[in-house]
Amino acid sequence: MKKINIGIVGYGVVGSSVVKILDKDREIITQKSGLDINVKKVYTRNWNRKLFYPIDDSKKAKTVDEIINDKDIDIVVEVAGGIEFPYHLITQAIKNRKNIVTANKALLAEKGKDIFSLAQKYDVRIGFEAAVAGGIPIIKALREGLVANDISKIYGILNGTTNYILTSMYTEGKSFEQALKEAQEKGYAEADPTLDINGTDAAHKISILASLSFGGFVDFSQVYVEGIDKIDTLDIELGRELGYTLKLLAIAKSHGEEVEIRVNPTFLPSWHPLSKVDGVFNAVMVEGNNVGETMFYGRGAGGLPTASAVISDIVCIGKSIANNLGRDLEITSMDWKHKDLTLTKVKDFYTRYYVRFTVPDITGILAKIASVFAKYNISIAAVIQKEKILKLQKETKEKVVPLVILTHTASENNIQLAIKEIVSNKYSVENPVIIRVEDEE
Amino acid sequence: MKKINIGIVGYGVVGSSVVKILDKDREIITQKSGLDINVKKVYTRNWNRKLFYPIDDSKKAKTVDEIINDKDIDIVVEVAGGIEFPYHLITQAIKNRKNIVTANKALLAEKGKDIFSLAQKYDVRIGFEAAVAGGIPIIKALREGLVANDISKIYGILNGTTNYILTSMYTEGKSFEQALKEAQEKGYAEADPTLDINGTDAAHKISILASLSFGGFVDFSQVYVEGIDKIDTLDIELGRELGYTLKLLAIAKSHGEEVEIRVNPTFLPSWHPLSKVDGVFNAVMVEGNNVGETMFYGRGAGGLPTASAVISDIVCIGKSIANNLGRDLEITSMDWKHKDLTLTKVKDFYTRYYVRFTVPDITGILAKIASVFAKYNISIAAVIQKEKILKLQKETKEKVVPLVILTHTASENNIQLAIKEIVSNKYSVENPVIIRVEDEE
Ligand SMILES: NC(=O)c1ccc[n+]([C@@H]2O[C@H](COP(=O)([O-])OP(=O)(O)OC[C@H]3O[C@@H](n4cnc5c(N)ncnc54)[C@H](OP(=O)(O)O)[C@@H]3O)[C@@H](O)[C@H]2O)c1
Ligand SMILES: NC(=O)c1ccc[n+]([C@@H]2O[C@H](COP(=O)([O-])OP(=O)(O)OC[C@H]3O[C@@H](n4cnc5c(N)ncnc54)[C@H](OP(=O)(O)O)[C@@H]3O)[C@@H](O)[C@H]2O)c1
Repeated sequence: MKKINIGIVGYGVVGSSVVKILDKDREIITQKSGLDINVKKVYTRNWNRKLFYPIDDSKKAKTVDEIINDKDIDIVVEVAGGIEFPYHLITQAIKNRKNIVTANKALLAEKGKDIFSLAQKYDVRIGFEAAVAGGIPIIKALREGLVANDISKIYGILNGTTNYILTSMYTEGKSFEQALKEAQEKGYAEADPTLDINGTDAAHKISILASLSFGGFVDFSQVYVEGIDKIDTLDIELGRELGYTLKLLAIAKSHGEEVEIRVNPTFLPSWHPLSKVDGVFNAVMVEGNNVGETMFYGRGAGGLPTASAVISDIVCIGKSIANNLGRDLEITSMDWKHKDLTLTKVKDFYTRYYVRFTVPDITGILAKIASVFAKYNISIAAVIQKEKILKLQKETKEKVVPLVILTHTASENNIQLAIKEIVSNKYSVENPVIIRVEDEE
Repeated sequence: MKKINIGIVGYGVVGSSVVKILDKDREIITQKSGLDINVKKVYTRNWNRKLFYPIDDSKKAKTVDEIINDKDIDIVVEVAGGIEFPYHLITQAIKNRKNIVTANKALLAEKGKDIFSLAQKYDVRIGFEAAVAGGIPIIKALREGLVANDISKIYGILNGTTNYILTSMYTEGKSFEQALKEAQEKGYAEADPTLDINGTDAAHKISILASLSFGGFVDFSQVYVEGIDKIDTLDIELGRELGYTLKLLAIAKSHGEEVEIRVNPTFLPSWHPLSKVDGVFNAVMVEGNNVGETMFYGRGAGGLPTASAVISDIVCIGKSIANNLGRDLEITSMDWKHKDLTLTKVKDFYTRYYVRFTVPDITGILAKIASVFAKYNISIAAVIQKEKILKLQKETKEKVVPLVILTHTASENNIQLAIKEIVSNKYSVENPVIIRVEDEE
C-alpha cells in the first residue's frame, strides 16, 4: 500500500478535524482508498494555545518551511486562512512540486489565476473541494460527474451564517441584530462576521463555481455583492405574503459570451427547493443541458464536514501520486475555455424585482408610481398596499405606508431610472428597498 | 490528445442519447476532459426499427462480437438491459480486457459479485454511475467525495415512475390505476411497469448503494421489497392528516454487524426534505459520521440525464486508459470490507408503523386493540378514528370505519404478532393496512 505523506499548515477548526478523522477513521479510509495517509508534519502560528485535538510533539513544525521544503511530503494542506500568508506558502510549495489541498475560498477567488497557472507550470494538482459548500462534494460533481453538460446556471445558498440568520428572522420574526447575536452565541457566526454578512464569502464561492462551470477565471473585483445587514423584518413579512422566502443567493448564469455573477438577498417562491434549505445548511443547484436540474445539499461548514472534503481531495490526489502522475488525471480545469470570463454589467441584469416604497397615505400615489414604471417599460405583476402598518413620517408627521410592487422581468437599468424618478418626484418619502426575485414567469 | 474508442451495445433510449451528446457537445466534453471520445461501433438487435438518433452505417455492428473482440475498443458501454445477454457480453468483454460502463442496475444487483470479481481479476474498471439515480452523480459522491465517512444510513427516492404516481395520488387524489395510466400516457411508465411498481427497480439500486456504503456484496434475493400497487388513496389522505407524505423509499441502514435493506411505501413527515421530492425526480440522502446529512437531487431517468452519467464514467475511465492504468485509480470497491453483507431479517426491523384497521363502529374496540398493542409492548403515538368515512361490511352489512394507529418505534415481530391476534379476535374485519413510517421520536 502506498504511503502518502501530508503536511498541514494551520491547526484550527479544520486542520485539527483533518487530523482527528485520519486518526479515528483510519481503517475505513485505508480500506476504501487503498492509501496509507500519514500526517508527517503540522505547522501553526502558536503551539501554546489550546488545541482542539492533541498532536504528537514530534509532528509539530516550528516554521512553515519545515513543511514546504520536506522532500517526503507529497501534499501540502493549507487550512490557515487569510490571503498573503497562504499565497506565499502555496506558491513556494508548488515550486517545490508539492500538490496542494486548500479550503481557502478567499485565496482562490482572489488569486486563483496565479495559483492555478503556477500549478499547471509545475505539473501539480490543487484540490479545493472544501473551499465551497463544506462537506458537499459539489466541486467533484461539477468537474467530473457533470462533465458531459453545458451548464447554463449554477446558484445556491453558500453561506451558513447568513442562512441561519435569515431563517431565524423568517421563522421567529427576529430582527437582523437579534438573529446575528444568537448565531454568534451558538457558534454559527464568527466574532467578526463581516465577510459572511456582507456577502463576500458567498461571492468567493460562487466565483470558483462559475470558473469551473463556464471555463474561465473571474476578476473578483467585478463581482456584484450585496449582503444582508440592511434587511428589515418588514420585507421578510411582506415577501411571505407574496409567497416568497428571503435567502442570500449566490448566482452565476451564462448569457452566451457573458456570465452574470452576483450575490444578493433574493426572494424565492415557496415551491423552490432552495426556499426550504434552512439554518446552517448549504445547497447548490446546477442546471445542465443534458442532466437538467440537480441539487446538492448538506453542511457547508464546521470542522468535520469541511475536513471530510479535505480528505477526499487528499485521497484523489494521493491516487495520482501513487501512480507517479502529475496533473494527468485532472478533468475540467478552472479555465477550460482558455479565456477569462466576461462579466455582465450590473445595469444589464435582467430579473424580477420586489420594490418597497414608503408612500404618503393618499389616493393616487399608486397610479403615479405605476405610470413611471410603465414609462420605463416595467410591467407590474403584483401590488401590496397596507393600511395597517402605518407609521408617521419623521419630519412632516404625515402618515406613510409601505407600498410593495412586484415586477415581471425587467432590466436593472430601467428599474434604477424609474426609482430615481419616483424618489425625485417625492412619491416615495424614503429610498425604496429593492430585492431581486428569482421566479418563473 | 488521447483518443478513447468506445463500443456501445444497445441503441435505445440511453444508447442513442450517449451518441447524441457525444456529437452535439463534443467540443465542451473534449475541452473539459482532454480526451477525444470516439464511438467506434454500436450494436443493437434490430437496425431496421426507427432510431432515436441517426448513426453512420459504417459504425453499425452486426454482432456483439464485433465490439467485444475489437482490439481498438477500450470501453464497452452496455445499455441494452436485461440480465442474460448483458451478463454474457460483459464477462466476455472483461476477459478481453475491456473496461465496462453500464446503466444496468438489475444486472449489477443480481450478478454484481461475479462481474466485479472478474473485473478485479482482469484488472479492468466497471463504471455504473448511470445505474442509480440517472444523472445524479451519487456513485461518485459515495466512492470519492464522501470517502472519509463511515456511512450509517443511505436512503432515497430511486424510482421516478412510482414517485410520479404517488405524487399524483397525493396532489390530485387520483387512484393508483388512474395515476399509472396517466404516467404511461406521459411516457413516465413503461408499457410493462412491473419492475418499477413492485419495487424491484428501487431495490436493485439500493442494493448497489448499500454495497458501496457498507463494503460488501448483497444477496439480492434476501432484500425486502414491497411495491405501491396496493396503495389506497384513503391511506394517503389519512397520512396527510397526520402530517405525512407517502413515498416509495429505498433504505439501507447499518446496524453494526448487520445491514437493513428494504424498499417499501413509507410515510415521511412533511419537514423531511424527501417529502418534497415530487414527480419523476429522484433524491438520495446519505448520513456520514463526519459530513452529517447530505442530499443529492435530480432526474433519475430519461435518455439525456442517464447518458450524462454514462459519459462521466467514460471520461473517468478514459483517463485511466490514457495513462495506461488498470484499476489503480479506483476508490471504494463494492466489497471494500472484503466480506458479504449480512442482512437484517424482516422480523428484526425496528421502526414506526401506521396501521389502519377496519373496525365495527362500536364503542370499546379501540380499547381492545390498544390492549393487544400494549401486550406486545407497542406504544401508541396517535390515533385517528373517523366517523365520517363509513362503509358497510360486505357480508354482515354492519357499519365499519377506519381506525388508524400510529406507533412509536416497535419491532416488526411484535407488530405482526399483535396484528395476528387482533385479526383472529375479529377486532378488525379486514386485514389491516401496514405502512412503515420514517420519523424521529
Ligand atoms: N471552519 C469552517 O467551517 C470552514 C469551512 C470551509 C472552509 N474553511 C476555510 O478553512 C480555512 C481554515 O479555517 P478554520 O475555521 O480552521 O480557521 P481557524 O480555526 O482560525 O484555524 C486557522 C489556523 O491557522 C493558523 N494560522 C492562521 N494564519 C496563520 C499564519 N499566518 N501562520 C501560521 N498559522 C496561521 C491559526 O493560528 P492561530 O490559532 O494562532 O490564529 C489557526 O491555528 C480558512 O481558509 C477557512 O475559510 C473553514
Ligand atoms: N431509460 C432510462 O431512463 C434509464 C435510466 C437508467 C438506466 N437505464 C438502463 O439502461 C439500459 C437501457 O435502457 P433503455 O431505456 O435505453 O432501453 P431501450 O430503449 O429498450 O433500449 C435498449 C436497446 O438495447 C437493445 N437490446 C436489448 N436487448 C438486446 C439483445 N439481447 N441483443 C441486442 N440488442 C438488445 C434494444 O433493441 P430492441 O430495440 O430491438 O429491443 C434497444 O435498442 C437498461 O439496463 C436500463 O435499466 C435506463
